[in-house]
Order: sequence, then structure tokens, then C-alpha cells
Amino acid sequence: MSDVTDWWQTAIIDMEPGRIDIRGHPIEDLIGTVSFPQMIWLMLRGTLPSDGEAALLDAALTAAVDHGPQAPSIATARMAVTCGASLNQAMASAVNLLDDIHGGAGEQAVELYHRIDTSGDLPTTLTDWRTEHGKYIPGFGHRFHKPVDPRAPRLMALVAGAEAEGTVSGRFRRIGEAVAAHLTGTVGKPVPMNIDGATAVIYAELGFPPPLARGLFCLSRSVGILAHAWEQTEQGGRNKGPTPPAYLWRYTGSSSTKT
Amino acid sequence: MSDVTDWWQTAIIDMEPGRIDIRGHPIEDLIGTVSFPQMIWLMLRGTLPSDGEAALLDAALTAAVDHGPQAPSIATARMAVTCGASLNQAMASAVNLLDDIHGGAGEQAVELYHRIDTSGDLPTTLTDWRTEHGKYIPGFGHRFHKPVDPRAPRLMALVAGAEAEGTVSGRFRRIGEAVAAHLTGTVGKPVPMNIDGATAVIYAELGFPPPLARGLFCLSRSVGILAHAWEQTEQGGRNKGPTPPAYLWRYTGSSSTKT
Amino acid sequence: MSDVTDWWQTAIIDMEPGRIDIRGHPIEDLIGTVSFPQMIWLMLRGTLPSDGEAALLDAALTAAVDHGPQAPSIATARMAVTCGASLNQAMASAVNLLDDIHGGAGEQAVELYHRIDTSGDLPTTLTDWRTEHGKYIPGFGHRFHKPVDPRAPRLMALVAGAEAEGTVSGRFRRIGEAVAAHLTGTVGKPVPMNIDGATAVIYAELGFPPPLARGLFCLSRSVGILAHAWEQTEQGGRNKGPTPPAYLWRYTGSSSTKT
Amino acid sequence: MSDVTDWWQTAIIDMEPGRIDIRGHPIEDLIGTVSFPQMIWLMLRGTLPSDGEAALLDAALTAAVDHGPQAPSIATARMAVTCGASLNQAMASAVNLLDDIHGGAGEQAVELYHRIDTSGDLPTTLTDWRTEHGKYIPGFGHRFHKPVDPRAPRLMALVAGAEAEGTVSGRFRRIGEAVAAHLTGTVGKPVPMNIDGATAVIYAELGFPPPLARGLFCLSRSVGILAHAWEQTEQGGRNKGPTPPAYLWRYTGSSSTKT
Repeated sequence: MSDVTDWWQTAIIDMEPGRIDIRGHPIEDLIGTVSFPQMIWLMLRGTLPSDGEAALLDAALTAAVDHGPQAPSIATARMAVTCGASLNQAMASAVNLLDDIHGGAGEQAVELYHRIDTSGDLPTTLTDWRTEHGKYIPGFGHRFHKPVDPRAPRLMALVAGAEAEGTVSGRFRRIGEAVAAHLTGTVGKPVPMNIDGATAVIYAELGFPPPLARGLFCLSRSVGILAHAWEQTEQGGRNKGPTPPAYLWRYTGSSSTKT
Repeated sequence: MSDVTDWWQTAIIDMEPGRIDIRGHPIEDLIGTVSFPQMIWLMLRGTLPSDGEAALLDAALTAAVDHGPQAPSIATARMAVTCGASLNQAMASAVNLLDDIHGGAGEQAVELYHRIDTSGDLPTTLTDWRTEHGKYIPGFGHRFHKPVDPRAPRLMALVAGAEAEGTVSGRFRRIGEAVAAHLTGTVGKPVPMNIDGATAVIYAELGFPPPLARGLFCLSRSVGILAHAWEQTEQGGRNKGPTPPAYLWRYTGSSSTKT
Repeated sequence: MSDVTDWWQTAIIDMEPGRIDIRGHPIEDLIGTVSFPQMIWLMLRGTLPSDGEAALLDAALTAAVDHGPQAPSIATARMAVTCGASLNQAMASAVNLLDDIHGGAGEQAVELYHRIDTSGDLPTTLTDWRTEHGKYIPGFGHRFHKPVDPRAPRLMALVAGAEAEGTVSGRFRRIGEAVAAHLTGTVGKPVPMNIDGATAVIYAELGFPPPLARGLFCLSRSVGILAHAWEQTEQGGRNKGPTPPAYLWRYTGSSSTKT
Repeated sequence: MSDVTDWWQTAIIDMEPGRIDIRGHPIEDLIGTVSFPQMIWLMLRGTLPSDGEAALLDAALTAAVDHGPQAPSIATARMAVTCGASLNQAMASAVNLLDDIHGGAGEQAVELYHRIDTSGDLPTTLTDWRTEHGKYIPGFGHRFHKPVDPRAPRLMALVAGAEAEGTVSGRFRRIGEAVAAHLTGTVGKPVPMNIDGATAVIYAELGFPPPLARGLFCLSRSVGILAHAWEQTEQGGRNKGPTPPAYLWRYTGSSSTKT
């Protein structure tokens, strides 16, 4: 029967009746001992972080929990509960929208930082990136927060503090800040780091591979999704649409054949 | 235009260019200052918890992150990435399965505890519950972990410690333990509290309404879902089905009309 | 190994290399021979419908494909593709919203018709329904289409035609029309049958159990979801929110602590 | 307010109280007059198909409804209902898995056919495709159905018939068959067209752009997903995992630190 037991394989969790080990640690040794961010690290990486590393991860997770009901994911969660969806169901529909454009900028920024780090040639790497992906440089500039996204400088200050304590090298902070300076210089107006660029610095400094930057963002934003779904549940509403019912939509098609 | 601006209303987040306030707190005052579990509390409740309250919430979130690839949600996440799904997409499909039966036991247990607390009559309340919902009492007994789910006693010890410090009253811990004792006595074999019964004690002690017990479980289990989705991504596989391909399924229908 | 092969059991499909049987019919005998609605019936019911039955099912599926971008499901699908979601992913998030309130009225109406049929007492059954479920009677009245939802009378005319041909008994059409007459009389203004009440008549006449009325609605509305997701893909847009960016939302919480 | 009404724009549907037009046709003129596949075409394309075109679309939709519980999507739907998910919710989680690898082969095959049609150089186009996407040529060969997927030859016979009637040109059928012949020749064993390659021929012949091949597959497979979710609902089960509980999984991680 070993082929059946072998079908699913994992190094994350081991169990027998009365025993649960997470990455080799009995679960009862972890509960109340490690923090939730430490547990997240352990689950994803296999080992426990230092206190300094855990503090940076904690800050990044805390920073990205919400950006309001204008975000497609949050709007979806709020509409979902007015359709009768359970909270987990509302969360599912919403997290599904945290895709390449809505939830992928952090992942892309980590990848970009790695490329710049490898090439050592920032301008060429940015040019190549735009050739491949279009004009947007992930993690920089913000269509709403001008002059600056208030989350980014606070996160960068924490990274600088962690460098001073030897927790991280600062290599990716310097790359991130160089990207902002380069873009600001070439575009001719401020293009500062935003929340995605800043959390990407932290995830890159901490050694998370790019896809996990998206995964961690999803864990963080799930908090906002849940909070808004719950608030909407308490507000009530039935089949709540995106805009007030008086507006509906602009019809752009052909005339009716009705006579 | 006020009717349009009024269409979505929230007390969670306020924004203008360059400013983000969460529950009245500038986001930059929270990042690196409050922990991720404190931020979760603030988002869901509107105020910040005490350190003792935050510690209990942290323990409950840490305890429930994973129960292995045999769980339908984790299996779905792992299959999803072999179908080409992105990590947020895999998380969405999986969290969607944390519904009444797979993710609702904590919510139901909080509701049950509240009913027992209100009625003051444990046996009658359990009998009424079973009349309404069937034989399963949410939060007690475990089909795999015998004699005991190792997460529950550890969580109860933390609650007892919090009582000693005056953080919580212990009212719901006593109710939970009375339910276990009653079930053990009437069933005639041990029916101890499980992870859902134990986290429900914590969520009830901390004042979370029942539906948020499900929501918090989803935040916690999302960690395991992400970790398994990522591990499967690294393992590879294409269109991985539930069982090894040699087994397929038992066909129970009519004979083929093929001649 | 039989326990593994037995783990999943189905009477729907049987396979071996080079052979696929659906409900006992070789797939190659069905393709191009039965219509898509007939295949839907075969998959769900196990036998093929008569031509008259298939025509009614076809009409019900055709009637409910779309009700515009104001519907939460359609809005979600359109937002999803602007977040980078693939078409199947956009469909998933949207179908998830077709829950009790947004997609469950047809299911509820079939159940209501069955109860009236069983009790023989329409007024008491409606009163009991409202006691259990609240004031809304599923399938009757419409907040937008006044005086009448144009889909309902057309569907009822098809049912009447099918009765004349002996395809269906008309028992549930008479119940549906009696509900509309009763509500109109007691409410004091027209409360006609809507799309959900009318498709429920058809599904009840055809013998589908209530939950499949929801399932069939999902198959039908998936067409509109796909069409809108695709149209939005061609329109473009990035992270498109529910309302124009100028409106955001009304903040109803406490003042900022920022000084 | 025109900016609000303009926020969502569609050429698919127009409404006012009592009137619903689909692509310019009053809905009551379509119900019972056009078939469900014709309605699908109208929604996606804006015009009604000829009878011959509708018949080919119908055949492609009918052919792909199911491939059994071994498919990750079907397994997910069946597990979902044992977790308490509603039918629409089970469909959502499952359709989400019809992504690039599980549901994208038809889309990819249409794209490949277009490239071959444009280049006129089949071998080079296949070589380029493999350089970009890896060794799998979408739509050809089958890991289970040997020697041949029984759906493909039946669909190709229908295309040939439609050519004889002048409904389609046969250009993409010839390309598809040339790909199969080329692969069989170069691989040295039969690599026949499979269901995805065959439906892709039909969708390409009918003028659907590649992404809609995936969308149409989702409409088709949603039927199987619904049928299996409903069958599992009737079978019952609680938290049903992928394999029988006796097997769990292979743990591949480090030893427990428990002493």
C-alpha cells in the first residue's frame, strides 16, 4: 500500500494519534511559545527565525492588512456576504482576486530586486523589465498616495534599524532605494517606494522566494477582507451591487430589435 | 454625489492621499509597534487588546495552522497548484472548503458555550443542540487523536494562566470542561475537548462573536494552506488527482449500452 | 487495494483506456446526437429526457444567463479580470456569490411549491415560510422589473404549451400562479412571478430536486459571467474598483489619533 | 452623475423596468426560440450562429462535460460538499482549478493552430512552442486514453460533415490532423488528437478567440462538476479527504524534537 501513502508527501507536518509535529516540533511546544509570525515563518521555511527576523516579518504583515472598500478584493468580500456567503466563502472569493495585478506587485518587486542584485546594472534591468512586462515598475509610485505611501518610509526605517542590529544586510533596501531614485530622476517627478516595494525589500532581506511575497501578502490582506466582510454582515444588505441602484451601467451595444 | 460616496461605508479605515488610518490610528504608528495578532484584533474589534488578551489570541492562531494533506482544504490547495493555479488562487479554493463542517466547529462551539452560559442548564442545552443539529457536539472528541488532541490541553493551560493574571474570567473554560466531563460521563468513554473546543473557549473568553471564530480559524489555517501549496509547487506535478492513477474510482452505475 | 478504488464512487461515469461511458452511454454515441441541455439532464438525472422535457430545460437555462453588471456576481467577475485573474478564476469568484440570496431563490421556490403541493394549504404554508425565513417569498415580485419581469410570462407560456402536449402536468404552474394571485391580493399591489419563480415552476414540473434548481441556475448564469469577464478583458483596466475612484467610501469611525 | 453610470459599460445587456435586451434582442424573443448553445454564442459573440455553427458548438460543449473523480476539479467539488459547501460554492472551488494545466489546453491549442496557420511552417512552430512552453504540445496524446481518446475522432467526423455542408472551412481540422501526424512521426508512436485538440479545432473553425476556448470548456465541465457535487451530497460523508483515512501521507521532514 506504500504507493498510496506515498501519494501525498510533506516535510511540514507529521502525525499519529495524540501527536502533531510541525517541522519536527511538537505542536504543544510551539503554542504559546512562538508568536504567530514565527509560526508562519516556521511553516514556510522549516526553521524558526531570530527575534529580529520575526519582528520584520511581523511589521510587513501588519502593514498590508487593508486599503479600503475601493479595492476589488474588499468590494467582492462585502458584496459576497450580502449574497448569503459564509465568512470563509467571502474570504475565498476575495483572496482569489489578489492575483498578478492586485496582489502580485510584491512578488514581482522581489524578483526585480533579485535581478538587479544579480546583474549589478539597475538601468538595464529596469529597461529589460519594461520590455517584458510593460511600463509599470512593481513597488514604486502610487496612483492615490501622493507624495508618498505612509507605510513605505516606516517600513524602511525598521529595515534600517534591523541592519544596525545585524539582523539583515540592507542589500535589498539599498537596491529598492536606488530604484526609487532612478525612477524619480528619469520620470522627472517623485516615484517613491510604495507598500509593495517596501514589503518586497523586507521579504527579500529575509530570504523569502518571490512567490511567497504574494503568499504573505494574502495572509496579511485576508485580515482586512475578514474585517470588511464581518462589518458588512453587521450592516446587512441583500444582493448589494457595486454602485447605487440608480446608476446601473452604460449600454454601448446595438439598438433593440423590439418594435 | 453623496449617495455614491455613501454607498460603501466603513468604520475600519479612513484615507486621503498620503494618510491611512486604521480604526483611527495612523498606519505608521501601528507598523512595528503592534504585533500582527494585535492588528488582527484592532481590525476586527476596533480597539487594541491588552498584552494578555493578545497573547491568548496569538496562541489560538498559532495552534490551528495545519492538520495535514488529508484535510480536504489542504488537498485542494495542493491539487490546485498542479493545475496551474497561482498561490492566491490555491488559497481561495482551499479557504472556500473551510465551511460549516470543515471550518465551522469553532464557531458552533462558541455559540454552544453562549447558550449554556445563558441557560445555566448544560444537559438540556446539549440535548436541544443535538435535536437541532444532529449527534455531533462541536469541539469535543476527535476521530483521529485518541486519547487526546495535544493542542487542547496546552491551550487550556494558557487560559488558566490568563485567569490567574486576571486577563479573562475563566467562565467559558469552565463551561468547556463541563461539556467534556458531561459527554465523557454519558457516552461512557473519553470525549475530551479538541482544537475547536479549545480555541472556542479562548475566542469566547476574549469576547469574539461566534462567526469570527470561523473567520479567525480561516486566518490561521490559511498559513497551512499556503505552506502546503508552496511545498507542492516545489515538488511539481501536473493535474495531480486525489489518489494514485492506478486506482481511479468504483463505478456503481448501469452497464454500458455499447455493443 | 479495493478500499482505495472504493474511496470514490460514482454512477455517472465509467472509463477504461479508450472508453468513456456517461450513465452507460458511450460518449461517442452522445456527442452530436444529444443536445447540450439533454446532456445536462443525463448527467444530473441518469436518463435522457423526452424532446418536450429537454425543450423546457433549454428555455429555463436560456432565460437566466444575465442580469447585468449591477449583479454582485457579474461585478465580481469584471473586477477579477482587471486584477489579473484568468477566465476560469473570474468565473469561480463570481459563481461563489450565487449563494442563498443571489442564486438560491429558485431552489427555495421549488421547495416552497413542494410544500404547498404537499400541504394543499397555500396561505398557511406561506405564513409558515415567512415565520421561518422572513418576509421575502422567493420567486415573486422584483425590485427593478415593474410591473413584470419579462422572462416569467414567456416561460409560463412555454409551460402551458408543454401541458397541452402532455409533457408536464401543470401542477406546479398552477401553484406558482396561485402564489402570485394570493400575494397580489394580500399585499394590495401586483406581486407577479419573477424569473426565479418561473424557472422553479419548470424545474419542479421536470422533477428536479430543489438544490439542483440552484445548480442549474449556476450553469445558466455562468454564461453571463463568462461573457462579462471576457468583455471586461477586452476593455482593459487595472484593479478596477466598484465605483469611480473619485468617490471612495464614507468613513463612519472615530477620529484620527494623529496630532 | 454620468461618470458613475459610465463606470461599468457593456454591449451585452440593456435594461429598463420590464425590459431586458440581450445583444439587442428582447429576452422574451430568445427564450424558447434559440437553443442554450445559440444563447451562449450570442452572449459571447454578439450575433446568432447559423444552425450548422450552433450544432458544432453544441457538440463541443457536450463532449467535455466529465472525465471522472480522478480529475482535481471533480475531486475538489466532491470534497467541498462534504465540508458543508453549497452547490454553487463547490462549483466555484472546482472551476477555479480549471487553470492553465487542467483547463487551459484547449485555449493553448487554438493559439497553436493560429500560429501554424499564420506561419505556414508546422515543424518550426512546434519547435518554437516547445522552447517557450516545454515539451507538452497541448491537445495531443493522452496519459490514459490509449490508443485514442474516443471523443476526438467523433468530433472530427462532425467537423468533416460541417465542411461538406459549407459551415466551416476545415482549415483548422487540417492543421490539427497535421500536428498529430507530425508528432506521431517524430515521436515514433501514436500521438493522436485528444479532447482538447479536437474542441480547439471546433472553436478555431467557429472563430472563437483562444481565451474563450478555456471559457467554453469551463461551461462544459461545470456540468460534470455539478453532477458529481450533487451525487456526493446524496452519498453523504463529512470532511472527506483525498485518500482513505488509513493512508494519510508520507512524512519526509526532520525527526521530532520530542524527547
